[in-house]
Amino acid sequence: MTPVSIEISAQDGKARTGVLHTRRGSIETPAFMPVGTAGSVKGMLPEEVAGLGARIILANTYHLHVRPGEELVREMGGIHAFSGWSGPILTDSGGYQVFSLAELRTIDDDGVTFRDHIEGSRRRLTPEASIGIQETLGSDIMMALDDCTGAPGDETLAAQAMQRTKAWLPRNLAARKDQGAALFGIVQGGLFDDLREESLEATRAHPFDGIALGGVSVGEKREEMRRIITTWGPRLPWERPRYLMGIGKPEDLIESIAAGFDIFDCVLPTRHGRTAQLFTSRGMINMRNAVYRDRKGPIDERCACPVCRKFSCAYLRHLYQSKEMLGPRLGTIHNLWFYLELMRGAREAIRRGSFASYRQAFLQRLGEEAGA
Amino acid sequence: MTPVSIEISAQDGKARTGVLHTRRGSIETPAFMPVGTAGSVKGMLPEEVAGLGARIILANTYHLHVRPGEELVREMGGIHAFSGWSGPILTDSGGYQVFSLAELRTIDDDGVTFRDHIEGSRRRLTPEASIGIQETLGSDIMMALDDCTGAPGDETLAAQAMQRTKAWLPRNLAARKDQGAALFGIVQGGLFDDLREESLEATRAHPFDGIALGGVSVGEKREEMRRIITTWGPRLPWERPRYLMGIGKPEDLIESIAAGFDIFDCVLPTRHGRTAQLFTSRGMINMRNAVYRDRKGPIDERCACPVCRKFSCAYLRHLYQSKEMLGPRLGTIHNLWFYLELMRGAREAIRRGSFASYRQAFLQRLGEEAGA
Repeated sequence: MTPVSIEISAQDGKARTGVLHTRRGSIETPAFMPVGTAGSVKGMLPEEVAGLGARIILANTYHLHVRPGEELVREMGGIHAFSGWSGPILTDSGGYQVFSLAELRTIDDDGVTFRDHIEGSRRRLTPEASIGIQETLGSDIMMALDDCTGAPGDETLAAQAMQRTKAWLPRNLAARKDQGAALFGIVQGGLFDDLREESLEATRAHPFDGIALGGVSVGEKREEMRRIITTWGPRLPWERPRYLMGIGKPEDLIESIAAGFDIFDCVLPTRHGRTAQLFTSRGMINMRNAVYRDRKGPIDERCACPVCRKFSCAYLRHLYQSKEMLGPRLGTIHNLWFYLELMRGAREAIRRGSFASYRQAFLQRLGEEAGA
Repeated sequence: MTPVSIEISAQDGKARTGVLHTRRGSIETPAFMPVGTAGSVKGMLPEEVAGLGARIILANTYHLHVRPGEELVREMGGIHAFSGWSGPILTDSGGYQVFSLAELRTIDDDGVTFRDHIEGSRRRLTPEASIGIQETLGSDIMMALDDCTGAPGDETLAAQAMQRTKAWLPRNLAARKDQGAALFGIVQGGLFDDLREESLEATRAHPFDGIALGGVSVGEKREEMRRIITTWGPRLPWERPRYLMGIGKPEDLIESIAAGFDIFDCVLPTRHGRTAQLFTSRGMINMRNAVYRDRKGPIDERCACPVCRKFSCAYLRHLYQSKEMLGPRLGTIHNLWFYLELMRGAREAIRRGSFASYRQAFLQRLGEEAGA
């Protein structure tokens, strides 16, 4: 018995659909995970997130470690009891936030020392510490700590980060005590195929329950990002869940599904929802734009989300302009629905063997062309 | 046929319970109206507000006039279609906000000139303009424009404001074109019984569909406020709905129900909910207090609201401390439930003839004593 397993029920080109089994329920894939940074998907009740169709959410280990602290979460019965989300939760390793948010960080072969961005306390993250925190939180799918320092296009830095990530792989696995929690390894290597190759070989050689592609969408050009996704998605082990980390725009997700990835997370739908940037079938729109001042129609005529069924653009614009809390909330609902609907449509299309036309129609509406 | 009517079904002491009939449905009284300032009860979906038991909400004429403007609201089908709230809506006259928010205001016998606090545009509010805006919004219960300038304890100022309010009464009524919308008059007069008397006599002599007590809780001492409420509540006409404006804390509401008022509005539950000040049967608590850091129990053991049924104090405190949008939202839900539950309990107690003991038990839990 492994903590998670994926059952692929249909394949269409390189895209695949199936079911990811976890100890807290099964998830149809491809699946999008809304980001619940500090133990809540911002502004949303757990039952609303589930009502939109999400079956798994992501929580950030760094944020929860800094505040309120994993020990408090455990005392309160774990992250599920604490937050009220009873479905599966994937936690990241905390590494990415240490590298993007924390101060005065110094990395060495053993781990990384930093000051957190809230209290400025000196803290240390190692593979053992990361797994310890994730287990204390009660994560269902844990991520191995990796070195995310490499600038994707700098071969020396990318190689260094990849080697350190590789060296930490067995330490992450050895640190796991909760054998019911899955642990995924992360492939690094920047834009360099030989580094990616070495990283993938090392990661797949270990008994990780799933494999993630990391270090993507970290500053590289869009075509470079697409090439990495398209090249490495299909090469991740078939029999294990494939997780593309932190991606991305709807068109990137469609292309990543085409490359055979199963699960995704991204802050865009929630973050953009809060700032009036709303996803539609014809691209992203800024709801603060004056053109929506007296628009009676919904955000997107093609959308059947709870917001589009009930509210006009004019009302949404008014809420954003007036800084009414309901604006960010409605924008979040709409954007999450858009992402989750994209996944529903993709699953259905793959099952029917019509993913190529689903993908083409989706991209055409956005004025884009499908990749190779 | 009058636009609204109240049917009193039971009386207990001076307290009364019944049904307020409006063109958009009937409301059991005593009733609390959540405040939906700019067309939304902050952070709440209309169906959630209704789900907590609210049957009527208040919208602020000043805010909607300044942004997005009543003409836009009309173009969008009126405030109900615009905001998605299909039940009755009471609008204030805009006067109170002009006096509390606007700049450079000058009042004369015809009306008030001011610059709004958003764009700084020069605007003018008269009884005719106020009723015009309220009708354009599509209000179900409109409030007459009154002069709220009087400091409650200054007899000269209070007399001046009352006289002007009195002089404007017929102008408000004459301005009404929508005969399906109710129009309430407001009794002013500060802390002075002879002024209140004169104001009440003038107001009741006009065919207003309901009578409100205004100029209460505007800076006077608590005992003075209570005396005004207790004195004047029972003297408002029996056969018309009695509205106590902008009051108040839970204990004030209990006392105001005891004085025979039917409908109430106040920003406290929503405003305090956003800043972690939560109402409980034992008084208000600040959820940011360190004592709640690891409290597993709900906000209030006696509370059956959706928040108390699901979330711990520890989680709520974490949300507020982390500035998570869900904190203000959950606090708002809890506080609104508390206010609406207070009304449910009062209605039930009046029907059973046990309001005195309901009131006493309620106040005892708060460590207060019932008034005369």
